[in-house]
Amino acid sequence: MQPLALTMGDPAGIGGELTLRAWQALRERRCPFVALDDPQRLTRIAQQIGCHVPIHSVDDAASAVSIFPDALPVIPTLLAIPAVPGLPDKANARAVIASIERATALAQSGAVGGVVTNPINKAALYDAGFPYPGHTEFLAALTGASGREIMMLASPQLRVVPVTIHVSLRDAMASLSTDRIIAATRTTHHALRCDFGIGQPRLAMAGLNPHAGEQGALGDEEQIIIGPAIEALRREGIDVSGPWPPDTMFTAAARAKYDAAICMYHDQALIPLKTLDMEHGVNVTLGLPIMRTSPDHGTAYDIAGKGVADATSLIAAIELCARLSRAERAIG
Amino acid sequence: MQPLALTMGDPAGIGGELTLRAWQALRERRCPFVALDDPQRLTRIAQQIGCHVPIHSVDDAASAVSIFPDALPVIPTLLAIPAVPGLPDKANARAVIASIERATALAQSGAVGGVVTNPINKAALYDAGFPYPGHTEFLAALTGASGREIMMLASPQLRVVPVTIHVSLRDAMASLSTDRIIAATRTTHHALRCDFGIGQPRLAMAGLNPHAGEQGALGDEEQIIIGPAIEALRREGIDVSGPWPPDTMFTAAARAKYDAAICMYHDQALIPLKTLDMEHGVNVTLGLPIMRTSPDHGTAYDIAGKGVADATSLIAAIELCARLSRAERAIG
Repeated sequence: MQPLALTMGDPAGIGGELTLRAWQALRERRCPFVALDDPQRLTRIAQQIGCHVPIHSVDDAASAVSIFPDALPVIPTLLAIPAVPGLPDKANARAVIASIERATALAQSGAVGGVVTNPINKAALYDAGFPYPGHTEFLAALTGASGREIMMLASPQLRVVPVTIHVSLRDAMASLSTDRIIAATRTTHHALRCDFGIGQPRLAMAGLNPHAGEQGALGDEEQIIIGPAIEALRREGIDVSGPWPPDTMFTAAARAKYDAAICMYHDQALIPLKTLDMEHGVNVTLGLPIMRTSPDHGTAYDIAGKGVADATSLIAAIELCARLSRAERAIG
Repeated sequence: MQPLALTMGDPAGIGGELTLRAWQALRERRCPFVALDDPQRLTRIAQQIGCHVPIHSVDDAASAVSIFPDALPVIPTLLAIPAVPGLPDKANARAVIASIERATALAQSGAVGGVVTNPINKAALYDAGFPYPGHTEFLAALTGASGREIMMLASPQLRVVPVTIHVSLRDAMASLSTDRIIAATRTTHHALRCDFGIGQPRLAMAGLNPHAGEQGALGDEEQIIIGPAIEALRREGIDVSGPWPPDTMFTAAARAKYDAAICMYHDQALIPLKTLDMEHGVNVTLGLPIMRTSPDHGTAYDIAGKGVADATSLIAAIELCARLSRAERAIG
């Protein structure tokens, strides 16, 4: 059994407490992970929030599996200065980045089955010269997969893949193209087969406009951009339906007919996912040579250090990463 | 007690069967209505779908209340030719329009407490010279309220008001303005107080962009268009929060903090509403001098005449119209 690597995230955020809670929840399940973190800070957080978690420093990932039932294994990644909950400090940016780099290297070498990332604060990293819009793009660059990364959000009820992501709605519409839709759908189809173990994935493609444009009366992107993508994908043998009216494609009856929805913009994907289930959403990066998941929330500075942060999404992210990494090994 | 008026809708659609089912469901509750319909066609549908509903023609709305527990009261509105389920015919367009006109006149005169409309097919009416984009605009014109009509979708879990409605996403963005947002929010606030009987309505305003624009990094409409509307509305004493990130404002925890969400475009409002509850959504027209609700679905030609249409939304629309019309009388 391979462990997973769990990054530190922003040390001023809730990542540390989530890591401790996740170990408590997962120590007895077959889901070991090793944290790339500062052992001292984790010990201090455990004391602060009154959470009994033995911390065990290790040199490599291999020893983490046997230790995991009794202590949280940590490969030391030391902070420059002690972190203060709620107050990000760019002095620690280097450690945050090093944690991600180390986790990625472990996954690339096969020492861990995948990477789970705690939330970072991009602004605190930009100041330290981090040139990426976020985690996902950084991981793509580290693994030589830039431009192929695709974001999937997965919950027990729904999987969504937004073709355009962190841009304004105006820019999302401007950057939507038949080629981008085809690329995102192909990557999703491949991941559902190879990582999720779904033999014949069924994909549902959203329209962009109300009522999917009503034959052009309410917009023509369905006819000009989305329709041709669907036709091209079908010619490749990919089972994709649509373009569907966006407002009715996320009902329980509609969801039963597909394995993932391909969405045209961020909120078209994330509104239904978060409205249905705010806690269990997991971010899965598709298109990378390594497996990577993350919880579907941010650093939550406002509640950091108070012991009230909800680890449900991180736990779900770890469990999904373990499941996907086993599926990949089983197939690949 | 006042009855409500229920229109015929497209006679080739599911409206007739829904009317019969609604009478069966509501005859023993204190929710009487009179149908503006063709008694012969209703009798025929009842036979076709094996649904025992006595039809009783009446001359006016006043007699409907006492008849209602024993028979479906109908003010005759005769079709030009017999309707065929699934096959709209413009020969009957005049009767469809007359049903709406008569129901509206009854509401304006105070003979009925409000109007509930069965689904129409705009295309079948356009051919007959009907110049309106839909029901709502027609009712606004009939009551001299053109330009003031606002669409609310209400379900037991959520009320949403899209500021822009049946236009492409591109046109929705182009037509969004501070003035439109202010007007829609004022109308919603007034309706929640006077029609819904909510003393201090709490409104939540959505952003347009992912993460509500992240201080301009993902779009500036929040700062240029939406923010100024919120400030102006607050100066009027209206309790409105936002702009909120659209993807997290429809969770159960978020919904508990407001009475209605003001949304920037059709699917931002309708995706969460229909994802949460496809069956009980009711369309409520605000800003008219009469009360009007309708089910949140179309003519459903594909299942018309088969007896399988689900009357849940029409029943919810009738019940909500009755409740709102009583609240208005209690206050006004």
